[in-house]
Amino acid sequence: MGKVYLVGAGPGAPDLLTLRAARILAAADIVLHDALVHPDTLKLAAHARFIDVGKRYGKVSTEQRFIIRALIEAARTHETVVRLKGGDPMIFGRAGEEIAACRAANIPVEVVPGISAAQGAASRLLVSLTHRAQARRVQYVTGHDRDGKLPGDIDWRSLADPAATTIVYMPKKTLRLLSEHAIAQGLDPSTPAVAVANATRPDETMIAATVGTIAEKIEASALDGPVLVMIGRVLASAIAQESSSDESSVNEALRSA
Amino acid sequence: MGKVYLVGAGPGAPDLLTLRAARILAAADIVLHDALVHPDTLKLAAHARFIDVGKRYGKVSTEQRFIIRALIEAARTHETVVRLKGGDPMIFGRAGEEIAACRAANIPVEVVPGISAAQGAASRLLVSLTHRAQARRVQYVTGHDRDGKLPGDIDWRSLADPAATTIVYMPKKTLRLLSEHAIAQGLDPSTPAVAVANATRPDETMIAATVGTIAEKIEASALDGPVLVMIGRVLASAIAQESSSDESSVNEALRSA
Repeated sequence: MGKVYLVGAGPGAPDLLTLRAARILAAADIVLHDALVHPDTLKLAAHARFIDVGKRYGKVSTEQRFIIRALIEAARTHETVVRLKGGDPMIFGRAGEEIAACRAANIPVEVVPGISAAQGAASRLLVSLTHRAQARRVQYVTGHDRDGKLPGDIDWRSLADPAATTIVYMPKKTLRLLSEHAIAQGLDPSTPAVAVANATRPDETMIAATVGTIAEKIEASALDGPVLVMIGRVLASAIAQESSSDESSVNEALRSA
Repeated sequence: MGKVYLVGAGPGAPDLLTLRAARILAAADIVLHDALVHPDTLKLAAHARFIDVGKRYGKVSTEQRFIIRALIEAARTHETVVRLKGGDPMIFGRAGEEIAACRAANIPVEVVPGISAAQGAASRLLVSLTHRAQARRVQYVTGHDRDGKLPGDIDWRSLADPAATTIVYMPKKTLRLLSEHAIAQGLDPSTPAVAVANATRPDETMIAATVGTIAEKIEASALDGPVLVMIGRVLASAIAQESSSDESSVNEALRSA
């Protein structure tokens, strides 16, 4: 019977992996990985077998059952099993269900944290998520429930707090509705908002706007890949770097900041 | 003129540093570090000069000015300057002020994210901060303002949301008041709460309680070092591991989980 390691692969750039994750990958017999893990990260698992269990949006629930079955099966036949996830396993990474399944099957499990996409984006934007003069609180919310819809039990008032920085994960389809709810609860529509796709990767793209205009700007763009949207006063300094309204220029300006 | 790297040292364990941080430390000419960075992490900066700029609670504002002066001075006389911070620089790390000071002095600055203390604690507790059935939102709040008091502009209602996981940073002196405010806004006093000191270090200690009792339990304990308090339904599974009410047994039970 093997041991399962739930390992965070970080936001995208392969050198934003932890030393511990690199050591465990080097010892891995089998790696079950998300679709978007960098090839250089997979190469660290020099003698492992690989299973791509990457999920596609909209088919989440079915495939999560498959992942859990594959994980349990892998631990029955391999000593060191790595479940490699983008970002941090404990933040919107479905780790809870995989940990519970391992425990129910009496398989030892260990978690290796990873840099989240939000942390990667904040570092690229040079934006402190909790700048002392501007934010008391930073919060991550999910933009969709298991059916791909906006979750019904989000506390909208908490998103309207001007002293909070909010990061919305995977919001593309539901962002317009989410923004409208936050504004209806009192959030100033001119609050800065930045969308980041592929944070810390070479194809990283950013769109700077306000919470009132960000959904429309994303819809009008060709923004592709995993997107997160950051909302709050702390983003003003990042947007000040914007040299033009052209999307790639924003990106360039932010990169050279 | 040198370049300043604001680098996250992670939560405590030296192998929870990123590969990028390790590479930049190896190239560092001078390292200005927090008090609690692990000695093995400092050793990675093999040919650097070190300045311990560790801040002590209650003397924050004065010393932050000194740190910024030392950082600018270091960049005038060294090529690769590392400002090494516990956790992630962008989450309660005062990075905003240091970035602004570097920019004002025309010093190039880059941020390398780190694993936050909350992420370290979640991995040790095997608790998904956003477990799908239990939490829609995870939020980090600070337990004190620049005078060491509870910040006046915290949105208490956002802490009372039963579908949120809340992590309170540095709350020891203000936790009782913070809990009372959250309960007054409707948070169930029986909501699980876990205090974690020295997350991911050999001297890691945890206290499991509820939001109604956690402040009292911490006060009655010998809990030392940097503490964070995690509040929310997702913590129930961690507390279920508790085998007795004895503090060190809780710790042992959690460790061997």
